[in-house]
Amino acid sequence: MLHIILTTALLITTMSALAQQAPAPPIVSPEVSADHKVTFRIQAPKATAVKLSGGDIPDNGPGAAMTKNDAGLWEVTLGPLPAGAFRYNFNVDGLSVIDPRNPAISESNNNVWSLVVVPGSDFMDTREVPHGAVAAVTYKSASLNRMRRMHIYTPPGYEAGKDKYPVFYLLHGSSDSDDSWSSVGRAGFILDNLIADKKAKPMIVVMPAGHTSPMVRRAPGATGPNPTEEFVTDLMGSIVPYVESHYRAKTDRASRAIAGLSMGGSQTLNAAIPRLDKFAYVGVFSSGLFNAANQQGPSWEDTHKAELDNAEWKKGLKLLWFATGKEDRLMPSTKSTVAMLEKHGFKPVFIESAGGHVWLNWRDYMNQFVPQLFK
Amino acid sequence: MLHIILTTALLITTMSALAQQAPAPPIVSPEVSADHKVTFRIQAPKATAVKLSGGDIPDNGPGAAMTKNDAGLWEVTLGPLPAGAFRYNFNVDGLSVIDPRNPAISESNNNVWSLVVVPGSDFMDTREVPHGAVAAVTYKSASLNRMRRMHIYTPPGYEAGKDKYPVFYLLHGSSDSDDSWSSVGRAGFILDNLIADKKAKPMIVVMPAGHTSPMVRRAPGATGPNPTEEFVTDLMGSIVPYVESHYRAKTDRASRAIAGLSMGGSQTLNAAIPRLDKFAYVGVFSSGLFNAANQQGPSWEDTHKAELDNAEWKKGLKLLWFATGKEDRLMPSTKSTVAMLEKHGFKPVFIESAGGHVWLNWRDYMNQFVPQLFK
Repeated sequence: MLHIILTTALLITTMSALAQQAPAPPIVSPEVSADHKVTFRIQAPKATAVKLSGGDIPDNGPGAAMTKNDAGLWEVTLGPLPAGAFRYNFNVDGLSVIDPRNPAISESNNNVWSLVVVPGSDFMDTREVPHGAVAAVTYKSASLNRMRRMHIYTPPGYEAGKDKYPVFYLLHGSSDSDDSWSSVGRAGFILDNLIADKKAKPMIVVMPAGHTSPMVRRAPGATGPNPTEEFVTDLMGSIVPYVESHYRAKTDRASRAIAGLSMGGSQTLNAAIPRLDKFAYVGVFSSGLFNAANQQGPSWEDTHKAELDNAEWKKGLKLLWFATGKEDRLMPSTKSTVAMLEKHGFKPVFIESAGGHVWLNWRDYMNQFVPQLFK
Repeated sequence: MLHIILTTALLITTMSALAQQAPAPPIVSPEVSADHKVTFRIQAPKATAVKLSGGDIPDNGPGAAMTKNDAGLWEVTLGPLPAGAFRYNFNVDGLSVIDPRNPAISESNNNVWSLVVVPGSDFMDTREVPHGAVAAVTYKSASLNRMRRMHIYTPPGYEAGKDKYPVFYLLHGSSDSDDSWSSVGRAGFILDNLIADKKAKPMIVVMPAGHTSPMVRRAPGATGPNPTEEFVTDLMGSIVPYVESHYRAKTDRASRAIAGLSMGGSQTLNAAIPRLDKFAYVGVFSSGLFNAANQQGPSWEDTHKAELDNAEWKKGLKLLWFATGKEDRLMPSTKSTVAMLEKHGFKPVFIESAGGHVWLNWRDYMNQFVPQLFK
């Protein structure tokens, strides 16, 4: 079989695409050790300062300084890190760079991160259990009048089966994308594990793109289309109808759940509370509604008074679930929203967890929320 | 709705993940103009030399030099470029960097590329037609004894339907990944358009990972597992059985096709010719078998003489199709493989196209090959 080996070598050396890149030295990055320490490396001989950036890596703070060896290889070891998935990039003399040696990535709205998965979690690991499929799906948004992308998880057995399934709409946070929940969020693997362990019902999980355009920071008082309204219109007008006509989806209220983190939590409240006849399960992770001190016009509570006080709708609401970390700066918003909802006769569950505004919490919240659905 | 606008602004400013990144200036990159010129930009004030790399961008050669303005923004405009998808990255003082402003990417075996889509093609554009779903699927490889990932395209109507479909196994080239055909290769969109135009039958397209490990260049004479054998064993022993048990797949020979580009073309021949009772359609893009001058032991032709001369198997072979560009350095391998197959009574179709070893050709070959399948 030597000739096949030579064949492979010949193919590689003759590929024009490869010829554009200098042969890479055998740098391994990231390297996860048995004790869950992670070593990050980047070859940058001309750089004068390299830092590891990554908001969700515990104790990485403003970014760990990396050190350079004589060959120009920068390196830092962190941890032991908790099990999970962590986004990171390198700051090379002020330039944000993803890891040139790591093909694993997680997409945001305006950029891409490198991704490292630290194993050791029963609920997040890629275990040897039946797996579902996570599809990129292109659909027409009627309200935005263009083709858009979402991700859809179908549970093990879906592709060859005949059953209908309930649907869980799962929204990402500000600056992220429809890829985020299935990459850094590990949503598909969390579902696979919960279903294998018989802790959750098999379900379809729809992960739309919550930003309707490249993210721009809107100044207070800015005019033009409101991004939350644009998204909610797309969700209710195009995404839900697409899923319910293109998938074997159950379409009654008791078979629809919605949740989101941060911006997605606010979108969840904006989508679900005024249409509570459509959703039986509502989750808000690290978020709430806000009443800015300098707001003008009627408050969200005033605007939605009729829906908030609709006793009929409350009867079919099976779960209204909030979770926010004690160190999360959005805790006041969560608390004021929970209090406002209680004032209108809701009985929200409110979990005050440890930690802050990080994916470590959001994956954990999802792992707590999903087993309560569609019972 | 001002309070919702403020809500969004507040959420954004309070997100700890974002706090790790300095606010980005409104740099747009890549920018595709109406006349199909593409402008690439990167902010790197401290860099002394920045080039645009990208093997498949026509006339980009060893990489266009970029020029810096007073604000430290590097820029270059190329084109007009032909319609298609192009991978690129920046070389910043010797460091390979993907575009910090572009979330669109294409994964390889050892790295990730930025991706720009230039519209203007009837067969590759994201048109307003029914779209299939492209799923990331995790399966257990029995031979490699680990969980692996493949991508699977299901045609429009699959997820809510009951029909069974033929299956096309589509293999990537050396250095690439199971993501490559659906990102830079536009495979899903090409299928959507062909199906919408009634030029191709609806089918399932399976895109496995052709490398069984991070790619290492094997020296001639190297020992250890052969990567092509490892992949073919995984394909026939785990991937085909997975697809045929987890999807509504037709499982007769006339409903199985296989094709690949470059290394994937060689893998296609190694998978299909010794098992021609399993495949009715075989495609080899920019590739062939090789007989290295310094090979030891019997040749591929000698080893596979019985299968090459099996007259029964030839009866059910509906298409054996080769395409290679006139400027492709692998043209001699294609020609010698076609000649060897003809010597053994095969009647391969051989398309000699313009151009070289590039995605512009591979997407075009796919667009020619797929309409001939499952007729």
